Amino acid sequence: MLGLMQDWPLLCTKVLDHAATYHGRREVVSRSVEGPVHRTDYATLRRRSLRVAKRLEREGIGLGDRCATLAWNTWRHMEVWYGLLGLGAIYHTVNPRLFADQITWIVNHAEDRLLFVDLTFLPLVEKIAADLKTIEKIIVLTDPDHMPEVSLPKEVAVYEDWLAEADDDFAWKTFDENTAAGMCYTSGTTGSPKGVVYSHRSNVLHAMAAVTPDMMAISSRDRVMPVVPLFHANGWSLAFSGPLAGATLVLPGPRMEGEAIHGLLQDERVTMTAAVPTVWLMLLHHLEATGGTLDYLKRVVIGGSACPRAMTEAFQTRYGVEVYHAWGMTEMSPLGSICTLTPEYADLEGAARLDIQEKQGHPPFTVEMRVTDDEGTDVPWDGKTFGRLKVRGPAVAEAYFKGEGGEICDADGFFDTGDVAHMDANGYMQITDRSKDVIKSGGEWISTIDLENLAVGHPDVAEAAVIGVAHPKWDERPLLVIVPREGREPSRDDILAFMAGRVAKWWLPDDVVLVEEIPHTATGKIKKTALRDQFGDYRLPTA
Amino acid sequence: MLGLMQDWPLLCTKVLDHAATYHGRREVVSRSVEGPVHRTDYATLRRRSLRVAKRLEREGIGLGDRCATLAWNTWRHMEVWYGLLGLGAIYHTVNPRLFADQITWIVNHAEDRLLFVDLTFLPLVEKIAADLKTIEKIIVLTDPDHMPEVSLPKEVAVYEDWLAEADDDFAWKTFDENTAAGMCYTSGTTGSPKGVVYSHRSNVLHAMAAVTPDMMAISSRDRVMPVVPLFHANGWSLAFSGPLAGATLVLPGPRMEGEAIHGLLQDERVTMTAAVPTVWLMLLHHLEATGGTLDYLKRVVIGGSACPRAMTEAFQTRYGVEVYHAWGMTEMSPLGSICTLTPEYADLEGAARLDIQEKQGHPPFTVEMRVTDDEGTDVPWDGKTFGRLKVRGPAVAEAYFKGEGGEICDADGFFDTGDVAHMDANGYMQITDRSKDVIKSGGEWISTIDLENLAVGHPDVAEAAVIGVAHPKWDERPLLVIVPREGREPSRDDILAFMAGRVAKWWLPDDVVLVEEIPHTATGKIKKTALRDQFGDYRLPTA
Ligand SMILES: Nc1ncnc2c1ncn2[C@@H]1O[C@H](COP(=O)(O)O)[C@@H](O)[C@H]1O
Repeated sequence: MLGLMQDWPLLCTKVLDHAATYHGRREVVSRSVEGPVHRTDYATLRRRSLRVAKRLEREGIGLGDRCATLAWNTWRHMEVWYGLLGLGAIYHTVNPRLFADQITWIVNHAEDRLLFVDLTFLPLVEKIAADLKTIEKIIVLTDPDHMPEVSLPKEVAVYEDWLAEADDDFAWKTFDENTAAGMCYTSGTTGSPKGVVYSHRSNVLHAMAAVTPDMMAISSRDRVMPVVPLFHANGWSLAFSGPLAGATLVLPGPRMEGEAIHGLLQDERVTMTAAVPTVWLMLLHHLEATGGTLDYLKRVVIGGSACPRAMTEAFQTRYGVEVYHAWGMTEMSPLGSICTLTPEYADLEGAARLDIQEKQGHPPFTVEMRVTDDEGTDVPWDGKTFGRLKVRGPAVAEAYFKGEGGEICDADGFFDTGDVAHMDANGYMQITDRSKDVIKSGGEWISTIDLENLAVGHPDVAEAAVIGVAHPKWDERPLLVIVPREGREPSRDDILAFMAGRVAKWWLPDDVVLVEEIPHTATGKIKKTALRDQFGDYRLPTA
Repeated sequence: MLGLMQDWPLLCTKVLDHAATYHGRREVVSRSVEGPVHRTDYATLRRRSLRVAKRLEREGIGLGDRCATLAWNTWRHMEVWYGLLGLGAIYHTVNPRLFADQITWIVNHAEDRLLFVDLTFLPLVEKIAADLKTIEKIIVLTDPDHMPEVSLPKEVAVYEDWLAEADDDFAWKTFDENTAAGMCYTSGTTGSPKGVVYSHRSNVLHAMAAVTPDMMAISSRDRVMPVVPLFHANGWSLAFSGPLAGATLVLPGPRMEGEAIHGLLQDERVTMTAAVPTVWLMLLHHLEATGGTLDYLKRVVIGGSACPRAMTEAFQTRYGVEVYHAWGMTEMSPLGSICTLTPEYADLEGAARLDIQEKQGHPPFTVEMRVTDDEGTDVPWDGKTFGRLKVRGPAVAEAYFKGEGGEICDADGFFDTGDVAHMDANGYMQITDRSKDVIKSGGEWISTIDLENLAVGHPDVAEAAVIGVAHPKWDERPLLVIVPREGREPSRDDILAFMAGRVAKWWLPDDVVLVEEIPHTATGKIKKTALRDQFGDYRLPTA
């Protein structure tokens, strides 16, 4: 027997309709790529998105067509998203920080038909345009006044002119809520990049979960600044969860350096913001250098890689801004968990509170977690036994585009995140490693992240990475690679002495090497594959 | 092209799984029907619900079977809900305050197979049991120590004994998320009661919308007391939204008088509660009489009928508790809107703030509203032009059980709420009447609720109702019926003089009659049908 409730598909455009109808005058403020701050509101943004949809339809774009964007967070980028969504076409955000040939490969693999590009990335596009086999037209996200001369082997349009060719007398198309909505390739440290394909349903459910009080807690009174780019892991869903909550949006455009971000936080009275630790490091440096304050900001969501304890402490004690440590991944739309404090922890203060905030937190309803050993058996939730972190939910990937990578979920439907983590008795998860980075020493696991966090606590260490190196007796043993702080040259023994006693003896690295630079991926994570290549034949003194 | 996200059906049991896994030690506190306060937690509640499911299955209950409950809000009632949900069977909450023959009619119409009943309602059940044609067994929600002698023409079981016959080694069944989950009959002022059939999907989506910061804003740090009974309009979804948020639940059982409610609010440090105005009137009287305070309560959700301005003022200024005026209906699962303050209104104070709080507020994402005139044309959103309020969404009824009442949605899929309302420019809705109560005077509409609110402002008036009475020239004109305060006898002219100037002249009632009592429905609303019967032939002095 079925329920007798209305059939109301969860379509992304309904989110914008809601914002435009009940929060229509709430602003969407952008730092434009051209420079000045631009202001619009949800009602206007919706009308412009309807025009985008109508114009796209004239372009021959419809259900199932992919269109790429190489763009910063601005109102125009959002209009393009919603315009595509309103046709059942698919926004494909491409990360412009990837290598040119990776971008080419991704756009060709996705078979994108149109490319929307910000002025910033025109030089890049000029380089690769000839190789973008399926791109029929390149639309430059600017107005005629700012359009430079370009030499491109494709049809080119200036966004505002192109858009002016349509009016907003248009109705969103409707279709199955499982229809593809968006696409984002994971940087994939092994093999080629893999396309994650979000559906309307997954985006909507994810946004509903993201705004809840124990997650990002977004209300209509919030002024939200998504510093995390739309091209990073579905923009952490803020292009959906912001309008769903009726929150004001402040989009930072191309400028992410400390001064620019601080300026917007203050001028636009931002109450909540979100980005990776690197961005916040720049902001904190800027604040320290200038004596700046954060007068309106209440909370900052930090994820993408582990949020250093010192960063949490700086935000909370120096600037009065609460840190929400978050974990997620492209395959999860991307939110997996947030470290807001449930009653068991809510009253903690000082160091005890920071201890908990090093955890990546607890999941929203719609995310199920499991931590298992190599045999697939659940490990105890004791806050220390770690294993493979697996997830299940309506906004978790079932497969990659074109079946790349084959079956990615186990028999119970769980997706292996590739992260290694433990859970505590209160359901808080903490990442201890990536499963391909974790070191297996004599059958026991050693967390490289724990060792790295410990090593960067040494006053002479700027950055640290730990990898496993072959060992005749133990299979693998840890090697610590460090970038010293400018002008410092700490000794191996000095570092190891610092670490000893703070970690199990058998976890201590077998050797320490100093390097000038540690390689990073396009999303700012340590590229351990490169390190492993570099130190593949390293002979440990203990071997 | 479809998205490549996991197929994860929105089943109600996943809500309880989430609570038990990540908020497992959060308490569910109940005032038991037997008297003492009972304490359990989500992890235990889930295990007991699994036992209910297993035991029900042995009873032959499965997909699509309806089972009735005549019960207060307690942990046992919740276990029965989730046990049924875990089989794809259907909880059917029956309102014990209905007349005995209405209850009989409803249970027979629903074809309920089992009846779960609280001790309180055993006398009632003894009266009607013989007529409950489809009920196979009656399970009394108590333990053997408290089980009285009963004489019932059906098989009878004591809940705790019955439950002890199963263990919790059971897995929830899975099925289509559109499967029927629950049933609730609307009291229906015309015709027979009509069954609303919720689905798993509608309940889950509704709960996700209900907890968002602009709606009930429920977090894991909240201690939520649903005073509204589970048998009223799906219990305002709190049996789902509470666990979904991981909030502590405080269930008041059978005692709703001021003293009992105040005791729980204080002893259990309740932060949020919800019920109809009548309940809060009792609490406010009790507080006034005893000089009591509300030391933990932060907000109270008031709906079911319009929240009087004086009540909002008392809670906010005297007790420091924020009022969330809410509107909904059984057919909406039930939440339609809540009057939390968006930025346009958030800074208002005093009378200006109370003015806004008289509105029923703005809808969550998933509820679409429309206000039209008799021809179906949208009226302007100017905060004064009123018309028929229509709604659409995934938790809004599409039809009634067994097709009673025929097609209930229009061509655009909107359900006519039967309420008359206006919308303002910021998307705030205010109910001005029921469409069958609104008075059509010379083709123009007069709001009976506005007149009633005005009349009760007179110091001598305890309660007021306005109905339309036939008029030769204007078709209908308003008649004001009042219950005077004890010992007072206000005159017609006195009342009309008080109202004049505060309302358009042509809205003024044509006459005033004093009565001892105004008839009410089982859910505490004024029964205008009865009043219209009583005053059907009333001859207005103006006629
Ligand atoms: N808060 C965090 N702490 C540690 N690692 C994180 C965190 N957030 C994300 N990650 C890592 O980033 C991966 C997802 O990468 P991406 O899909 O590129 O966003 C996860 O699987 C984690 O390894």
